[in-house]
Amino acid sequence: MKIAILGFGTVGSGVYEIAKTLKNIEVKKVLEKDLSKINIATDNYDEIINDKEIELVVECMGGLHPAYEFIMKALQNKKSVVSANKAVIAKYLDEFLKTARENNVEFRFEASVGGGIPCLAGIQKIRRVENIDKFYGIFNGTSNFILDNMYRFENEFFTTLKNAQELGYAEADPSADIDGYDVTNKVIISFALAYDGFIKNDFPCFTLRNITKEDILYFKKQGFIAKYIGEATTKANDYEASVMLNLFPINALEGNVLSNYNIVTVQSHTMGEVKFYGQGAGKLPTANAIIQDILDIQEKISFNPISIEKKYTYSSNLFKHKYVIRSNEELKGDFEKVDKDGSNFYHYTKEITQADLLKLVDGKDYLVTKVSEVLA
Amino acid sequence: MKIAILGFGTVGSGVYEIAKTLKNIEVKKVLEKDLSKINIATDNYDEIINDKEIELVVECMGGLHPAYEFIMKALQNKKSVVSANKAVIAKYLDEFLKTARENNVEFRFEASVGGGIPCLAGIQKIRRVENIDKFYGIFNGTSNFILDNMYRFENEFFTTLKNAQELGYAEADPSADIDGYDVTNKVIISFALAYDGFIKNDFPCFTLRNITKEDILYFKKQGFIAKYIGEATTKANDYEASVMLNLFPINALEGNVLSNYNIVTVQSHTMGEVKFYGQGAGKLPTANAIIQDILDIQEKISFNPISIEKKYTYSSNLFKHKYVIRSNEELKGDFEKVDKDGSNFYHYTKEITQADLLKLVDGKDYLVTKVSEVLA
Repeated sequence: MKIAILGFGTVGSGVYEIAKTLKNIEVKKVLEKDLSKINIATDNYDEIINDKEIELVVECMGGLHPAYEFIMKALQNKKSVVSANKAVIAKYLDEFLKTARENNVEFRFEASVGGGIPCLAGIQKIRRVENIDKFYGIFNGTSNFILDNMYRFENEFFTTLKNAQELGYAEADPSADIDGYDVTNKVIISFALAYDGFIKNDFPCFTLRNITKEDILYFKKQGFIAKYIGEATTKANDYEASVMLNLFPINALEGNVLSNYNIVTVQSHTMGEVKFYGQGAGKLPTANAIIQDILDIQEKISFNPISIEKKYTYSSNLFKHKYVIRSNEELKGDFEKVDKDGSNFYHYTKEITQADLLKLVDGKDYLVTKVSEVLA
Repeated sequence: MKIAILGFGTVGSGVYEIAKTLKNIEVKKVLEKDLSKINIATDNYDEIINDKEIELVVECMGGLHPAYEFIMKALQNKKSVVSANKAVIAKYLDEFLKTARENNVEFRFEASVGGGIPCLAGIQKIRRVENIDKFYGIFNGTSNFILDNMYRFENEFFTTLKNAQELGYAEADPSADIDGYDVTNKVIISFALAYDGFIKNDFPCFTLRNITKEDILYFKKQGFIAKYIGEATTKANDYEASVMLNLFPINALEGNVLSNYNIVTVQSHTMGEVKFYGQGAGKLPTANAIIQDILDIQEKISFNPISIEKKYTYSSNLFKHKYVIRSNEELKGDFEKVDKDGSNFYHYTKEITQADLLKLVDGKDYLVTKVSEVLA
């Protein structure tokens, strides 16, 4: 199969590198402004679109535009598309799937969630047999690198972030990773495969920025490790989702996911908990997932055809959980326990809904954590 | 697709239960001596073999015979076979694959390793793109339940085994689980998919029986958790494999796999480490994996056609590792360190080969552990 790669950065060059080792994939053109990067580069997308031999386009540009337009144009010209671009997929998945269907081609995106980890395939495989009860996971390597380093070396958040930036684990503008937009996108994409519906980002997302060394040390004393978790579940046509710190017992698997690794858990009736762990980003793991999608398209492998026809409404009253809110003033409310540690107040809520939680937090920059319900 | 199930015990009834919920699988007959168990039961295998409508046979009988004969007969009669029976697969995989190929049908066995965990599919999927460098994992739930309970509740081995038997986590005859035969079979089966070769059980396997509460407590003091690990790797046409206790740092993922859960790690160049975690046994998880195989056969899904044509020889001199040997006498040898703890001597070897290790142990019932090389 002859393919084109849009963008020859980290992931695009990784796809090229792996494709070269395979007999059945030939990279014919690369869309890239810097034509010196590779001899098959072109800066004119029409050259790719008009090339009848190119059956599939790999979008590795990132960002919303022109990625959206380029994906749409490829699909409209009857070329399948594989993308790792979570931002554009979380926003336009419905259009991409509809356009792919209308043109009898495929749109695949395993690499957009969990990088190299085959977690979307895992969700689709389980869905072939039964419904998903819940999924949750560490979906972002940058935030996990920061939390793991804060925990192990007892450093402050911003020192650790700076260190992560120097080591290349965090972007110059880290907002997508540490404010939860990246995880939000991954929850939206995973949700589509797990529950056949396309939700918007209208569920709670709490930034990671508010966590301090004091918080980490306080939770450590209580036997907890904080991890940045995206999760979702449904009940009839309502759904609950969140992106926020969860507190895990120190012997929970999630608590022991080190460095920039990811772990994604899928729960269902017959399987119980299945977890997928690995590199959630990076050149070759992400490229591998893209190559796997290309091979699946080539071999017509599909566990569970993607449909997002079901309609779900976000409900802030669906389930009750326990939370711990840290502020530097004592909050009013009916708490299970309030711990004072230094100048911090840690408020342990009873089982409350997300609506109750949002009311308590009231838009303030408190540290908000959920008490994880995992077995340990 | 119309199928038959051989054996209506735990797993067989689980397959029936899940198949009932699916439109495209119909269980037409069940081979079962006790005809009262289900209305479609027959005690005459020929009724299944001669039924032209039955395209696929699920073997859930366990044991070597007559499972071997029944699988062969189904394949010879052009019925695909799905099995979870690791003992018979590890012994006769070559014959089963050859007979399936000759009769243009499929032989699949995802459920034989890791129960519900899609780890064999994971290996095959990676193999589609590149070679596997190494695999290792906790492949046996019974032994993990025992080790986890010994670690957490500081009980003796045989007290814990008895408790596991009472709870249904261990068989009345626990030998397959605690002496390593079960893990050995799973290593042989995983090896076939990872390296395209069919090895025999001529690699070292050390029983779990020798571990004591004192060992667990000693290792805990050193910051280690012992887990029972099967693993294999190759170099050209040689392979190294083992089934034995490995010592993990307390924050390694393996160290935090609780109860009877399994975890399987696959290492490759582009993917790094990918881990698959879940229920390694049990009625519904195992049945789910069997159903997945049936659906894959039905939908003609195959990531990497199974071939075991490559020849590998076991080598005890392939790689060097560090080991800790516990005995109640001091051994002669060039050790890195020897710790005396109570009446126990813990000998920390330098980097040595399996041949060196076997010479040191010399068939005695010492506790033999490998120092795991995982990152933590």
